[in-house]
Amino acid sequence: MTTELIAALPGIVFITDAALVRQRSRDFFWYSPVLKRQLNGVKADAVALPKDEGEVIRILAECHARRIPVTPRGAGTGNYGQAMPLKGGIVLDLSAMDRVIWAKPGVLRAQAGAKLIAIDEQTRREVGGELRFHPSTKRTATIGGFIAGGSAGAGSCMWGSLREPGNILGLRVVTMEATPRVLELRGADIDKANHAYGTNGVITEVEVPLAPAQDWVDLMFGFPTLMDAARFADALTRADGIVKKLACVIAAPVPQQYFKHFEGVVPAGTHVVLAMVAAPFLEALPPYIERTNGRELYRCPTDQAAVPLYEHSWNHTTLQALKVDRSITYLQTLFPPPGHLALVEKMAAMFGDEVPMHLEFVRFGGEVTCFGLQLVRYTTEERLAEIIRLHEESGCPIFNPHAFTLEEGGMKRVDARQLAFKREADPLGLLNPGKMLAWDNPAWTPDAPRSHYMFGDADAPEVEDALGE
Amino acid sequence: MTTELIAALPGIVFITDAALVRQRSRDFFWYSPVLKRQLNGVKADAVALPKDEGEVIRILAECHARRIPVTPRGAGTGNYGQAMPLKGGIVLDLSAMDRVIWAKPGVLRAQAGAKLIAIDEQTRREVGGELRFHPSTKRTATIGGFIAGGSAGAGSCMWGSLREPGNILGLRVVTMEATPRVLELRGADIDKANHAYGTNGVITEVEVPLAPAQDWVDLMFGFPTLMDAARFADALTRADGIVKKLACVIAAPVPQQYFKHFEGVVPAGTHVVLAMVAAPFLEALPPYIERTNGRELYRCPTDQAAVPLYEHSWNHTTLQALKVDRSITYLQTLFPPPGHLALVEKMAAMFGDEVPMHLEFVRFGGEVTCFGLQLVRYTTEERLAEIIRLHEESGCPIFNPHAFTLEEGGMKRVDARQLAFKREADPLGLLNPGKMLAWDNPAWTPDAPRSHYMFGDADAPEVEDALGE
Repeated sequence: MTTELIAALPGIVFITDAALVRQRSRDFFWYSPVLKRQLNGVKADAVALPKDEGEVIRILAECHARRIPVTPRGAGTGNYGQAMPLKGGIVLDLSAMDRVIWAKPGVLRAQAGAKLIAIDEQTRREVGGELRFHPSTKRTATIGGFIAGGSAGAGSCMWGSLREPGNILGLRVVTMEATPRVLELRGADIDKANHAYGTNGVITEVEVPLAPAQDWVDLMFGFPTLMDAARFADALTRADGIVKKLACVIAAPVPQQYFKHFEGVVPAGTHVVLAMVAAPFLEALPPYIERTNGRELYRCPTDQAAVPLYEHSWNHTTLQALKVDRSITYLQTLFPPPGHLALVEKMAAMFGDEVPMHLEFVRFGGEVTCFGLQLVRYTTEERLAEIIRLHEESGCPIFNPHAFTLEEGGMKRVDARQLAFKREADPLGLLNPGKMLAWDNPAWTPDAPRSHYMFGDADAPEVEDALGE
Repeated sequence: MTTELIAALPGIVFITDAALVRQRSRDFFWYSPVLKRQLNGVKADAVALPKDEGEVIRILAECHARRIPVTPRGAGTGNYGQAMPLKGGIVLDLSAMDRVIWAKPGVLRAQAGAKLIAIDEQTRREVGGELRFHPSTKRTATIGGFIAGGSAGAGSCMWGSLREPGNILGLRVVTMEATPRVLELRGADIDKANHAYGTNGVITEVEVPLAPAQDWVDLMFGFPTLMDAARFADALTRADGIVKKLACVIAAPVPQQYFKHFEGVVPAGTHVVLAMVAAPFLEALPPYIERTNGRELYRCPTDQAAVPLYEHSWNHTTLQALKVDRSITYLQTLFPPPGHLALVEKMAAMFGDEVPMHLEFVRFGGEVTCFGLQLVRYTTEERLAEIIRLHEESGCPIFNPHAFTLEEGGMKRVDARQLAFKREADPLGLLNPGKMLAWDNPAWTPDAPRSHYMFGDADAPEVEDALGE
């Protein structure tokens, strides 16, 4: 089947080597012990590497004719198997389509496979701009992968999440049909394919606004209590006059135990805030630090840091911990405003060091609040489920990072527009199958027990390579 | 006295012509019938026009030696007599010190007398930047005057008010002493002289952050109800991904009665929102407009408009009304979040067309809310005082635009830091005397009745000239 497909697509680069195909069929799903059990066996039949949109169209048409599933992918830096081919078939690796199409003051258009770090370097040089957001995987992730599989990151303390209208200006999408169409989604239509894991179209180009490029400074502050740290990060995020990119709270003893790059920097018992602030605004910080009993522990221009501070924030906090302790996993929690600080205090007291607090302060629907990416000292799937249940019962919704479907990892509801767009753009259901519950089971509701797509082996091997850095 | 002063300051330009001195002793205080009665007779003895900071220092030293009051002034676009010389003496007009000292990406340093519109033209051309804020008097006001006497304006829906840390990066201030000192205030020290009406130092240079220059588009939307309009402006201000500069709500029949530039544009009974949105984000607006039953009435790139829309917002709304109806005056109201929309609805119902609603949506302490600059169909001072009292009793603090002191026009409290800085920088109390209540009466409290500085004549002439445009 795969051999015939490859033969029918002369000139297109395919990877068929088993080890390489397995590698490009995976992401960082193994942060979750649940997904590690479920997804470890997932593997495509081959990986296609299109050089341009014409090749994408040819691949989709051939796969459509042969009913072969296609799972689009960027750099594979996701954490929930967003781009893992549950039903095999072809992984469509867009990383060779990495060109900036144009950049002008305030707006960028790029191919989906363009790397975030390369975009920022080019737009800074050419138009004095930079991307509003990036995930902690900025040094490897692609812009298309971030939009298809991500939602927030460094920059969300200024600009909210990628879902906020205006944070994406256009998506060019190829449909999965006998004769694939090329659609330009703009305005409200962007939501049809934004954060849809590539289940209803292959994103080939993106248009996004640029923020002004800044001279960022990495800063770490220490605080005597977790709530002092949280209040500082909250106040910094509220400070509309101060340009910042990161306001991340990490409870003791996480920095002391797991931040090998900052060994000896954080005194025992001290809770930290990691911040990125634009250089002109550093002079505005002292009153905020004093009011919350903080003190500065570390300062370095971001572009001069051996390891940028953002690689200790967002899900890199989890990765730094995993490098030291393989038993760690994590949550993704919304602390709804305006009571978010009280909820943080309550949940910290409820779980103590079993669930060390990690908060990312953000704008969310025009308000300041925080997401929790708490570490979890993992024991069993049952206890993990209980921890999640206790959060939700306390009014803290969990975006479950231990589930691989759009609905379960997200807002626990069917996105009717994305489902309708899949009917239009992928009528045979060949794009990234198994990720949109509402497609496979139209009767699905948030209360229905999940019963499908249990992959992988109980005796999955350890995943050593990604921790070797 | 004045003749001797002028003789002692060879080379410095003075204005002594009575009509010109009277003109440069005034601002737009006559928007308030109360201030019109109180301040109409205020007049300096002469106006000094320094060319540089050296001349400022010479003038202050001579005036200090002779105990002559000095009131610094920019373009005189204030509304509460901020720069009116209550005790006569010298008006120090800084408008000849109008140079941009340097502009680099993201930051500007300029002399205090630089005009806002000239700054924006130069920074747009040279570094792709523009001021974060401007008052509706952008075409005439100076940067130093805006900082000394203003607080918010177009841009406050993105950046909060000038008081938010980070919105001013540095102020260079000359003290009023036997030997004037030159101080650079930075960080938290900026608050010592920010919005102090020049009572405790003469600002000669300012350093402020720049926002990226945008292609702004003026937009007017119509709504069937005032609350639909308010909900649209609120949602637009909350939309963190959308770059905007204005979100102004004006109740019917104000646009129909008073907006001569938009005659026939606004149907009877329709309430409007005036917005400025950066061009790339126009496509994001339709869902917001639809959800609040709005429709577009007008669209024009700001730089192509005969009259920019911001000259119908902030206190230009009042001016447009005054051009047609001399009996109009206004309020300045805070609708505290998160209940601001309910308070707007309540106050609109309480006063109806006696106090036509005008709201400016802003960020305030990290939250979205609105200021009211409601028009008032004025009858008597007693009724005006009652309207103010009824607002305050309903939980809507009034920044009284019918008072000329810092404390009464502001938060009704003594700013201890500004008072302490005046002791240090103007120990004889010669700078803009009469504006800082706490200086003149250390026992003043917000509950104390005001009993000093009643100026002007009951039979003050009409002020025709400013309405002639």
